[in-house]
Amino acid sequence: MDDDVPLILTLEDSGSSASAPFGDLDQEELPNENGGSYDVNNDASSPAAGDCCAQQSSARHNWEMNYQEAAIYLQEGENNDKFFTHPKNAKALAAYLFAHNHLFYLMELSTALLLLLLSLCEAPAVPMLRLGIFVHATLELFALIVVVFELSMKMRWLGFQTFIRHKRTMVKTCVLLVQFIEAIVVLVRQTSHVRITRALRCIFLVDCRYCGAVRRNLRQIFQSLPPFIDILLLLLFFMVIFAILGFYLFSPNHSDPYFNTLENSLVNLFVLLTTSNFPDVMMPSYARNPWSCVFFIVYLSIELYFIMNLLLAVVFDTFNDIEKKKFKSLLLHKRTAIQHAFRLLITRQRPSGISFQHFEGLLRFYKPRMCARERYLTFKALNQSNTPLISLKDFYNFYEVVGLKWKAKRNREHWFDDLPRTAFLIFKGINILVKSRAFQYTMYTVVAVNGIWILVETFMLQGGNFFSRNVPWSYVVFLTIYGVELLLKSTGLGPVEYLSSGWNLFDFSVTLFAFLGLMALAFNMEPFYFIVVLRPLQLLRLFKLKKRYRNVLDTMFELFPRMASLGLTLLIFYYCFAIVGMEFFAGVVYPNCCNTSTVADAYRWVNHTVGNKTVVEEGYYYLNNFDNILNSFVTLFELTVVNDWYIIMEGVTSQTTHWSRLYFMIFYIVTMVVMTIIVAFILDAFVFRMNYTRKNQDSEEDNGIVLEKEISKEEVVGIIELYKRSSAAAEAAQLQQIVLQMDKYGQMSAVFLGRRSRTKSDLSMKMYEEEIQEWYEEHSRKEESQTPTQEPASASNSSLKPRSLRQRSQTVI
Amino acid sequence: MDDDVPLILTLEDSGSSASAPFGDLDQEELPNENGGSYDVNNDASSPAAGDCCAQQSSARHNWEMNYQEAAIYLQEGENNDKFFTHPKNAKALAAYLFAHNHLFYLMELSTALLLLLLSLCEAPAVPMLRLGIFVHATLELFALIVVVFELSMKMRWLGFQTFIRHKRTMVKTCVLLVQFIEAIVVLVRQTSHVRITRALRCIFLVDCRYCGAVRRNLRQIFQSLPPFIDILLLLLFFMVIFAILGFYLFSPNHSDPYFNTLENSLVNLFVLLTTSNFPDVMMPSYARNPWSCVFFIVYLSIELYFIMNLLLAVVFDTFNDIEKKKFKSLLLHKRTAIQHAFRLLITRQRPSGISFQHFEGLLRFYKPRMCARERYLTFKALNQSNTPLISLKDFYNFYEVVGLKWKAKRNREHWFDDLPRTAFLIFKGINILVKSRAFQYTMYTVVAVNGIWILVETFMLQGGNFFSRNVPWSYVVFLTIYGVELLLKSTGLGPVEYLSSGWNLFDFSVTLFAFLGLMALAFNMEPFYFIVVLRPLQLLRLFKLKKRYRNVLDTMFELFPRMASLGLTLLIFYYCFAIVGMEFFAGVVYPNCCNTSTVADAYRWVNHTVGNKTVVEEGYYYLNNFDNILNSFVTLFELTVVNDWYIIMEGVTSQTTHWSRLYFMIFYIVTMVVMTIIVAFILDAFVFRMNYTRKNQDSEEDNGIVLEKEISKEEVVGIIELYKRSSAAAEAAQLQQIVLQMDKYGQMSAVFLGRRSRTKSDLSMKMYEEEIQEWYEEHSRKEESQTPTQEPASASNSSLKPRSLRQRSQTVI
Repeated sequence: MDDDVPLILTLEDSGSSASAPFGDLDQEELPNENGGSYDVNNDASSPAAGDCCAQQSSARHNWEMNYQEAAIYLQEGENNDKFFTHPKNAKALAAYLFAHNHLFYLMELSTALLLLLLSLCEAPAVPMLRLGIFVHATLELFALIVVVFELSMKMRWLGFQTFIRHKRTMVKTCVLLVQFIEAIVVLVRQTSHVRITRALRCIFLVDCRYCGAVRRNLRQIFQSLPPFIDILLLLLFFMVIFAILGFYLFSPNHSDPYFNTLENSLVNLFVLLTTSNFPDVMMPSYARNPWSCVFFIVYLSIELYFIMNLLLAVVFDTFNDIEKKKFKSLLLHKRTAIQHAFRLLITRQRPSGISFQHFEGLLRFYKPRMCARERYLTFKALNQSNTPLISLKDFYNFYEVVGLKWKAKRNREHWFDDLPRTAFLIFKGINILVKSRAFQYTMYTVVAVNGIWILVETFMLQGGNFFSRNVPWSYVVFLTIYGVELLLKSTGLGPVEYLSSGWNLFDFSVTLFAFLGLMALAFNMEPFYFIVVLRPLQLLRLFKLKKRYRNVLDTMFELFPRMASLGLTLLIFYYCFAIVGMEFFAGVVYPNCCNTSTVADAYRWVNHTVGNKTVVEEGYYYLNNFDNILNSFVTLFELTVVNDWYIIMEGVTSQTTHWSRLYFMIFYIVTMVVMTIIVAFILDAFVFRMNYTRKNQDSEEDNGIVLEKEISKEEVVGIIELYKRSSAAAEAAQLQQIVLQMDKYGQMSAVFLGRRSRTKSDLSMKMYEEEIQEWYEEHSRKEESQTPTQEPASASNSSLKPRSLRQRSQTVI
Repeated sequence: MDDDVPLILTLEDSGSSASAPFGDLDQEELPNENGGSYDVNNDASSPAAGDCCAQQSSARHNWEMNYQEAAIYLQEGENNDKFFTHPKNAKALAAYLFAHNHLFYLMELSTALLLLLLSLCEAPAVPMLRLGIFVHATLELFALIVVVFELSMKMRWLGFQTFIRHKRTMVKTCVLLVQFIEAIVVLVRQTSHVRITRALRCIFLVDCRYCGAVRRNLRQIFQSLPPFIDILLLLLFFMVIFAILGFYLFSPNHSDPYFNTLENSLVNLFVLLTTSNFPDVMMPSYARNPWSCVFFIVYLSIELYFIMNLLLAVVFDTFNDIEKKKFKSLLLHKRTAIQHAFRLLITRQRPSGISFQHFEGLLRFYKPRMCARERYLTFKALNQSNTPLISLKDFYNFYEVVGLKWKAKRNREHWFDDLPRTAFLIFKGINILVKSRAFQYTMYTVVAVNGIWILVETFMLQGGNFFSRNVPWSYVVFLTIYGVELLLKSTGLGPVEYLSSGWNLFDFSVTLFAFLGLMALAFNMEPFYFIVVLRPLQLLRLFKLKKRYRNVLDTMFELFPRMASLGLTLLIFYYCFAIVGMEFFAGVVYPNCCNTSTVADAYRWVNHTVGNKTVVEEGYYYLNNFDNILNSFVTLFELTVVNDWYIIMEGVTSQTTHWSRLYFMIFYIVTMVVMTIIVAFILDAFVFRMNYTRKNQDSEEDNGIVLEKEISKEEVVGIIELYKRSSAAAEAAQLQQIVLQMDKYGQMSAVFLGRRSRTKSDLSMKMYEEEIQEWYEEHSRKEESQTPTQEPASASNSSLKPRSLRQRSQTVI
C-alpha cells in the first residue's frame, strides 16, 4: 500500500490538516520521472510526524480527497462549469458539496417558482387566487431570504473575489437587492406600487441549476443578435422609405385613413410587415386607382418575402456556426476536465494509467448509485489495451462509457423459455403471430377502419347531445380489438420488451385512455368526457408505416427536451412582458371601451332586442386584456401568432397613449427573434439529422450505442478479493452473485451489454470526425505554448497540465 | 495540308454527299494507333473518286462539318441539352441551326406571350382591352399556327422517333391540338364557352428556350414534392384529429359558429393553419371557458410552429440535395460534351491535342462574334503546357475560359495620364480627393443629414398640397451637392471606371432621377411627381458602410436572375389559377353581395345620409374579384399573403357552392409549396454564400475571375501568317493592329487581362473541390464499364468515347 501514493495531493494550499502533514513523506517517495512536476506540494508542506499506521490511513484519506476532486472535475466538465469556480479549499469544498445536490437544486427551483407564481396573487391578481398584500409580501420576503441563503452558500464556495467576478451571480445579487427593498416598501406601505421590477424575477429561475438549457438558449439568442439587428435595421430602413413614399402617394386621398399622417403611415407599414392589416390597408387606394396595388406588392415582396427570409438565413447561419463552436468548446472542456481528473488518479509509481482500485474510488464519488458490477464493467469498457491500467487515451472516452446501462446478455431469447413445454408452445405461437407482418397489417387496417368510422360517425352527428348514456357498440368493438392486441403483444413479447418500445408505450397509453373514456361514458362521469375525444390519436399508429414518418417522429422525440427548453425560454420572455403589460394596461380594455377608435367593432358588446328576441352582438376582443397574468399570457400568445394583433394594439392605444404602441412593437420584434431562433433550431436539427442518416445509410436501424463486454470468472474473483481486502463487504457480496450465476449455468465467463440512447453529441462526434482531430491538436498545441518552460522534466505526460491551471487559478484570485 | 485530316468525319451515316466520297481516302491515311476506333466510318463509305484539289477542298469541307458539330456539342453541354437530341444528319442539322438562333427564340417567346396576353382581351376581358370574339379567336389561331410551324421544325431536327420520345414536346403537341380545336369551335360558334384549357397556355411559355430557368425551377419543385406531400399529410392528419376534437368540445356552445358542424370545424382549422382567423375563432369558446384556449395553443404549436417548420426543413434539405446533384450532373454533362468535341477536333496524325487552326475553326462556329485576338488569347489561356496543341486535360477548362472578356492591360494608371501637365495635376488632385476617406465620410454625413431632413420635412407636412410650385431650397442644395460629387467622381476616376462600379451606377441613376424630379417640380409636370418621392432611395448608400450589408446586397444582385425566374414561375401558377378562377367566379362578387354570409361587413357598400352629410360605409372586399385577369392576379396575390384570405373565400363561397373552397384551399397549398421553395432557395443561396466567404476569408475583395496572358510579337506575326495562308484577310488585319500598337510603344510583347464575373458554378466548383475529383473518377469508371471490350486498340485516349455514344444513339432510334 505504501507505493500507492497519489501523484498530486489536492487542496494542498488550504487549511486542510489531513493532507499537509505528509508532505515530507510524499517528497521521500518521489519517483524520479515525476520529480520536476511536484514542487507545488512542497510549498504547502508543514513539519510532519506520524507512525506507519497513521501514515497509511492518511494516504487513504488523501486518496479520498483526490477521488472527490477528480469527480468534481469530471462533473464540471460534464456541466460545462468553468474551472475557475472549482472549489479551492476544504471550506469551499463543503459549500460546493452542499450546493451541488438535488435537494439544494430543488430548493433553488421551488423558490424561483414561488416568486414567479406570486404574480398570480399580487394585484392585479387572478380573481380566485387573490391574496392580501400582507400575505403575498411576506411570502415574497420569505422566498427572497431563501435566495439570500443560496447566494451566501455560493459565496462560501466561490470565495468573495470569484463571486464578484461571476457576472450572472452579480446580476442576481443586484436584482435580489432591488426586490428586497421593494418587498419591504410594500409591506410598510401596505399597498402595491408600480413594480415593473417584478419582470426581473425570472432571473432567479434562469439561474437555477435545472434551467441550464434555458441559459444556453438565452446565450444563443444573444449571440445571434448582432447579425439579426443588422438585417432588422435594413428592414426598418426600407419601411421608413416606403412610409415616406406612401405618405406622399396616398395622403391626398381623404378616404384613406391609413396614410393620412407620417406616423400612421409608419405604423401601418409596420403592421403590414406582419401582413396583419392586408388587404384592408390597400383597399381605399386600390378602389381609387388600381395601379396603387403595385406599391403594396413591391413593399411586401421586398420586406416580407425577401428581407424576412434573409433574416432567417442569417440567423440560421449564425446558429449553425454557434452550434459547432459550442460543441467544440464543450468537447475541449470535457477533455481538459478528464486530463485534470487523470492527473489526480495516477500514482507516482505508475504515472501511465489508473488502476481499478482508484477508478472505483472515483466512481464512488462521481456516481454513488452505481453498483460494483457496473463499476467494473465501466472499467473494462474503458480499458482497451487489456493492461491493468487505463491510459489517458482510454480515459478520454470516460463520458461516452460512463452513461452506459449494463445488463447481462440473456442466453434465453424469450421471457417464456423457462416455462413448461405446453405453455412454451402457446407463447411461442403468440410470439410468432405478433411478430408476423400479417398481424401488423391487420392491425393497421383495423386502425384505418376505426379512423374512417370515427370520421363518419362524427359527421353524422350534427349538434345535440353526443355523450348519450348508451355507449356506442363500435366503440366497444374497436376497444376490444385493441385490448386483445395489447394482451397478445405483451404476452408474446413479454411485458418488459413490450414496453421498451416507444411506439408500444404509446399504443398502451392510448388504449388505456380509451378504456378510461369508456368508463366515463358508462358511468356518466361528465368531467372525463374529454378522454373520449382522444380516441383518434390511435390513428397516429398509421404513421409507423413509412420510414420518413418514423424518422420525423423519432427526431421529434429526440428534439423534445430542447424544444421544451426553448418553450420555457419563450415563457420567460412572456413573463417579463406580461408583468410590464399588467402594470401599464391592466383594466384598460373593457366592453365598448374603444368606440372612438377604428377598431370599435371588435370591442363592441351590444345587447339589443329585435322583436321578442335578445340578440347579443359581441366583438369579444375586450377578452384580450392584461387584467391578470393568465389573461396576459393568452393575449401575448395572440400577439405571437400575429394575426389581427393590431386590433389589440389599437384598442389599448385608444385608451392610453400613442406610446403604448412601442410595447407591442417591441414585443413583436422580440418574439420575431425568438421565433426565428426556434425555426432555425428546428431547421438545423432536422437538416443535421437527415444529413446524418444520409451519411450512415448502411446502419439501417438505430438502436443507440451498444457495447459488449465479456468478463471471466477469475477476474470477478480477483475483484472480490480486492473489495474484501478494503473491507467493502456489500460490493463483494454483489459480485459474489455473478459468480454464483456463472456456476449455476456452468459458464466460465459472462457477457454483458452496455446500452444508452444516442445523443446529439454522439451524432456531432460522427459528423465532425475529421475536424475533431484538428481541434485536439490545436488545443494541445495551445496549451503547450501557454506553459512553455515551466515543466521541462515532465516529458512523459506533456499534455497534462493541472499545475498550470492551478497557477492560473491562483493568479486569478 | 494532307496530313491534316480529322480523326472522325461527322454525320457520316447520313445522306450528306460531302463526307462520304472520301471514306476510302480516310481509310488509306488511317494511322496505326487509331485503327480500331474508326470502323464506323467504313460502313457508310461509298466508291470514291477525286483529284488532289477536290480532295483538299473536301478535306476542308470535312473540317468545317467537324467544327460545326463540335460547336453544337459544346452548346449542348452548356445548355444541358441531352445528347440524344443531337442532330444526326444534314437535314436535321439545317433544322437544328434554324431552330437555334435568337430570331427563332424570339418568335417562340412572342408567340407564347401573345397567347398569354390574349386572356386580357377574351371575355371576361379588361374593359379597356376588350376585343371582338372574331378578332381574338383569329389572333389565337394565328399564334397557334406559328406554334405548329415551330413544332414541325423541331420534328425535322429531332426526327419522328426522338420527337415522340421527348415528353415535353409531346405534352406541348397535345395541348396545341386541344387549343386548336377550341379556337376553331369559338370561331364557328362566335361565342366563348367555358375554356379552362386556356390555363394550359403557359406550357408554350415554359417550353421557350429563354425560359430554361423556369423549367429548372418547375423540375425542382416537382422533385421536392414527394417529401413535401408526406409532411403535408401529417399536417392534414393532425388537422382532422383536432377538427373532430374541436367539434366534440365546442359544438355544445351554440354561440360558437366555428365548430357547429364537422365541416365548419375542418374549414376553420384549415384557416387557422394560416392563422388568418385567429383569435376570432377562439373567442366564443374562450368567452365561455378560459381554459379552451389550451386547445388552440396546442393546435397552433403543433401545426404552425412545429410541422410547418418541419415542412421547410424537409424542403430545404431536399433542395440542398437536388442543387448538388444538379451541379454534379451538369458538370459531368459538360465534361462529356468537351470529350465529344475534342474527339472531333484532333487529327489522326496528332491525336493528343488540338492545334490553333482547328480551335479557331471551332470558335468561328461556337462564338462567331469573337474577334481574332480574343480567339488566340482564349487558345493561349487554355494551353497550359506551352506546346502548340491543347491537350484534353487543358480543353476541360473550355467553359471557364471561353467566357472571359479580354482587354489589353493598360500601362497608364489613369485616364488623364496623357493630358498636359497642368490638367494632369488638377485631375490627379481630384482623383486623390475622391478616393480619400474624408471625402467618402463627408458624403455619408451629407446623405444621413439629407435623410433626417426628408423625414422631418415630411413629418411637418400634415396633409395639404405637397407639390407646391416653389421648389424647396433644401432639395436644390442637396441635389447640388450630389451633382458636384457626381462630377468630381466621374472626372477624377474617368467616366468608364466610374460607371463600372454598381454602387456608382446606383448613385448616378438616383441623382439623375432626383434631377428629373426637380424638373418635374419646376415645370409643374404632374405625372412625374412620383419621382420626387424616390429621393429617400439615396439613403441606401449608407449601407455601403458595413461589410455585412455589402455582402447581403451583393448576394442580392447575384441572386436577382434566379429570383426573377422564381417570380416568373409563381406568375405561371397565378396564370393557371387566374384562368380557372375567371371561368368559375367572374362576376360572382359585387357590393352587398354577401349579406347572408358571416363576412357580410367586408362586402358592404352603404351610402346613407347622416344629417346633411353623405356617409359612405365601404367594405371594399368586392374589389377582390375574378372579373378580369388583372383583378384576378391582385386577388391571388392577396391570397398568397394569406391574411384575411378566408373573407375572400367565404364571400365567393356564399355566392356559389361549398366546393369553391376547394379552389382556394388548393391554391393555398400550391403557393405554400412555391413559397417554401422560394424560402429554401433564399436560405440555401445565402447560407452557401456565407459559408463560401467564411472559407475564403483571405481573399477580401471579390472582383470576379481574372486571368493574365502575355503574347509576344513573334507569336502574333505567326498567327497573321496562318490567317493570310487561309486567306482570312479581316482577321489578319485585326491582328496587324496589335503589332502596330506594340511597335508604337516599342514593346516586344503585350499583356492582356481576361475578366468575367463569378458565377454560382464557380463558387460550387470551389466548395465541392474534393468531391469533384471523386465524381470525375466515378464517371470515367462508369463509362469504361459501359464499353468494356469494344475499343481495345485505343488505349492512348481511353476516356474518349464518342463512338460509344454514337452507337447508343443509333440503338435508340
